[in-house]
Amino acid sequence: MEPEIKKGILFTAFGSSMPRGEAAITAVRAAVAAAYPDVEVRTAYTSRIIMRKLAREQGRVIDEPAIALAKMAYEGFTDVAALSAHIIPGAEYDDLAAVVKAFRMMGEEAPKAGFRRLCLSPPLLSSYEDFERIAGVMADAYKRETERGAVVLVGHGSSHFADAAYCALQMALWRRSPNFFVGALEGSMSFGDLLPRLGKSGAKKLILAPAMLVAGDHAYNDIAGGEPGSWKSMLEAEGYEVAPALTGWGENEAVRDMILDKLRDVWGEAY
Amino acid sequence: MEPEIKKGILFTAFGSSMPRGEAAITAVRAAVAAAYPDVEVRTAYTSRIIMRKLAREQGRVIDEPAIALAKMAYEGFTDVAALSAHIIPGAEYDDLAAVVKAFRMMGEEAPKAGFRRLCLSPPLLSSYEDFERIAGVMADAYKRETERGAVVLVGHGSSHFADAAYCALQMALWRRSPNFFVGALEGSMSFGDLLPRLGKSGAKKLILAPAMLVAGDHAYNDIAGGEPGSWKSMLEAEGYEVAPALTGWGENEAVRDMILDKLRDVWGEAY
Amino acid sequence: MEPEIKKGILFTAFGSSMPRGEAAITAVRAAVAAAYPDVEVRTAYTSRIIMRKLAREQGRVIDEPAIALAKMAYEGFTDVAALSAHIIPGAEYDDLAAVVKAFRMMGEEAPKAGFRRLCLSPPLLSSYEDFERIAGVMADAYKRETERGAVVLVGHGSSHFADAAYCALQMALWRRSPNFFVGALEGSMSFGDLLPRLGKSGAKKLILAPAMLVAGDHAYNDIAGGEPGSWKSMLEAEGYEVAPALTGWGENEAVRDMILDKLRDVWGEAY
Amino acid sequence: MEPEIKKGILFTAFGSSMPRGEAAITAVRAAVAAAYPDVEVRTAYTSRIIMRKLAREQGRVIDEPAIALAKMAYEGFTDVAALSAHIIPGAEYDDLAAVVKAFRMMGEEAPKAGFRRLCLSPPLLSSYEDFERIAGVMADAYKRETERGAVVLVGHGSSHFADAAYCALQMALWRRSPNFFVGALEGSMSFGDLLPRLGKSGAKKLILAPAMLVAGDHAYNDIAGGEPGSWKSMLEAEGYEVAPALTGWGENEAVRDMILDKLRDVWGEAY
Repeated sequence: MEPEIKKGILFTAFGSSMPRGEAAITAVRAAVAAAYPDVEVRTAYTSRIIMRKLAREQGRVIDEPAIALAKMAYEGFTDVAALSAHIIPGAEYDDLAAVVKAFRMMGEEAPKAGFRRLCLSPPLLSSYEDFERIAGVMADAYKRETERGAVVLVGHGSSHFADAAYCALQMALWRRSPNFFVGALEGSMSFGDLLPRLGKSGAKKLILAPAMLVAGDHAYNDIAGGEPGSWKSMLEAEGYEVAPALTGWGENEAVRDMILDKLRDVWGEAY
Repeated sequence: MEPEIKKGILFTAFGSSMPRGEAAITAVRAAVAAAYPDVEVRTAYTSRIIMRKLAREQGRVIDEPAIALAKMAYEGFTDVAALSAHIIPGAEYDDLAAVVKAFRMMGEEAPKAGFRRLCLSPPLLSSYEDFERIAGVMADAYKRETERGAVVLVGHGSSHFADAAYCALQMALWRRSPNFFVGALEGSMSFGDLLPRLGKSGAKKLILAPAMLVAGDHAYNDIAGGEPGSWKSMLEAEGYEVAPALTGWGENEAVRDMILDKLRDVWGEAY
Repeated sequence: MEPEIKKGILFTAFGSSMPRGEAAITAVRAAVAAAYPDVEVRTAYTSRIIMRKLAREQGRVIDEPAIALAKMAYEGFTDVAALSAHIIPGAEYDDLAAVVKAFRMMGEEAPKAGFRRLCLSPPLLSSYEDFERIAGVMADAYKRETERGAVVLVGHGSSHFADAAYCALQMALWRRSPNFFVGALEGSMSFGDLLPRLGKSGAKKLILAPAMLVAGDHAYNDIAGGEPGSWKSMLEAEGYEVAPALTGWGENEAVRDMILDKLRDVWGEAY
Repeated sequence: MEPEIKKGILFTAFGSSMPRGEAAITAVRAAVAAAYPDVEVRTAYTSRIIMRKLAREQGRVIDEPAIALAKMAYEGFTDVAALSAHIIPGAEYDDLAAVVKAFRMMGEEAPKAGFRRLCLSPPLLSSYEDFERIAGVMADAYKRETERGAVVLVGHGSSHFADAAYCALQMALWRRSPNFFVGALEGSMSFGDLLPRLGKSGAKKLILAPAMLVAGDHAYNDIAGGEPGSWKSMLEAEGYEVAPALTGWGENEAVRDMILDKLRDVWGEAY
């Protein structure tokens, strides 16, 4: 006897503990819900620090992916898509993929503990085409800005191989405009690495924006904060005139379309 | 940096929705807790029907193993033993083993999603030695009864290969006394199969007892209930004088010792 | 681009190093090949001792399952059924199942390293129905013998839970005739355990036959050999008149049909 | 009873069907063998096309990883390191990792089918540090050349996310000299993408070298061949003076040291 089909999407993001940051997450999740109006959309975060902070400070419980998936199996969901709203296939995504794979194995050996179908949509920047597409989105978003000065996009960076994504992003953006510059808080595309690239451009006026899903703690503090260690402060100390543009990529409709297209690729339009 | 060690035991049983049945489960869990006083013992059930009934009727939420393990990982447990309080290595145990294996794989690929160490203790009747030992326990428990008449032990039975356990139990009990008889509600050791065996013994007085962890719904209804279809009624219709002995194996200290020994075998004394 | 479909069966047996034993294996494999004339049938053994002996003494190389499957993947097989010609779901079968499961996982993550489809047929005695059916087969095979005296079937036995299969076989055979007796070289159904059962039957003349796929080393030596420690010698020392019937189950067409039916159950008729 | 320890290394490369290409592979394998003189080193290739060509044209059989590992398990190896001599963590490496993971799972469930210990060393360019280190190696190797003109390194490229490695390589090499340029036969760093970067440098004389383990078919044909479609021909058509430098990275001792260090990281010095 086949169980009744019950479809669900597990929207999975790193998470944010700032309302501004959650706005971007909420916007992406709303786009997903609008695209699949008949499917229940649940939310999981992958950052334990953020989940614990939300629980402690706001009494809000958000599950991590394994708990959320286990609950969905118990509640009878049969067809589930885990959507990764991560930017790069780094450590957070690898962990999510391992959880999904384990639930898939669970479902093969103990059908009631898993799902009939469980797929995972890849992160935003997973292939050559993704870098081309995001570069186009950024070129549209910062058309005027790149004509008048430089635009510096600052990502999270990583000690994982996926840190190379920020290099690929730089190369792809340069195909659009020589005035795009990519840096990252961690990894190879450091502030020290950015400066000489920026210097050669001759630009004096900079737009400083996060290359992140959300404009949250990193954007408001590490990137554009007023403290001496922020990228804004350090760039100003180098003589640049810096205007922060604090919107997360999740607030950009064209980025949301990219995320939705990835979900459609693995889950199909019909769902 | 090694995480701080946090040990936990996930006591896992089929479950029971009757207070009498839960008494046996509680007794086993208490024995586990007493044997490992410094370790937190959590409980999971494997029967969704029972969990849903408890939630609906009593507002009590008991997690199934995957949810319980996912929560323990999130809460920082590092060394976990899943204890199977199942009687035979049948479908319920196979599912539990699949869940444990998936969490082990999860932990290897995404350490934070799993445990440093995760083991699973096998069900009560897992080997030749177990059948010998349980036969000894039953021989002690029903010494007088087998001298005066027959003792019929009724298990759950299964369409799984592990149904053979009830045959092995019959053979092992016969090594102790020819007056032990094994039947099962499902599978090969049916009521129809029991009758000729019982007939040859010449016994007229029978003790009728469950070969189950708990004396719950099955014991009070299917085995010893007053309805025409119960084993008690059917045996009486065949002319036997039937005295029910409605205690679950979990209420027997020697059985609890067997369960604890299995946990020690896989987890070690030191825990 | 879908690869061209290439179907294969991996016939997997414990193995035998005696020509008489291999006859039974050859008969089963031939039946499989005849049932699926368009499918290539390959052979793997699970006993390393036997494979090494064959390689050393006869220069014949038979692969174990992992090597055979890895070669089939390399050679472009897409749809493979591993057929277990084992009698019980014991340690040999568990190992085979683990290998098959690992290749399935391999194929999901690295399609070229695995198969589009890989299934495994369960061992001969896997469920209640199997015990009923084999009992019928044995009742047919030993109709006259059970009318004139006792038939003792001696299996391999195991320290694995699946040793219970020999108890289930005993119970199922007794449903056919009280003159069937089961023993095993290892595990619970030992010679010492058999004697009292046999004694109660009053039989003096015994047929002694293996409950094994092949009549090989165990049958010719441990069971029916002329040495003092063989079951034949020990039974004769107890006063029985013993006639060995040294044919492996694989030489019985009705047993081969059971094996084929299990393959059809998991792989389908169409193949 | 613990089995006797038997250590082995499975040296795994894409493979090459040209003697010149195999020279680089042989050099790396020899370095591995010299570093672990007491350990047997076996070889597997991951390119089926190359393995089939070698078998067909030269009668040489080289196993792919799954066959090689299955044979090692059968032959009693207990501690095995699979060494990936791939450049990037792309599709070839992912497949190898899936095979290794499956053998690890096999070994957990069926110890005799797997290994006591099985590890996998990551590909050459797996982290930020690797890009820095290879950039240093290249800067040393082409010190004079980058002072006199441009050096163009051509990698394989990929439709996999790991194609970003060539972007990261470009960024890392620019930290050493503005005269390094990276291209790839596939993926984002195409010939068309290289030309404008190269044009800005003002260089007229180019060294054209593979960014590959071996200088084989790709190096001699696609990169430096005399045919019109080769990168050499296309660069010459653009007016550049091109001098090929056809050595594989495996022929560079400093690259071999990187590979060995990765093996040591996962397997330890003591082996």
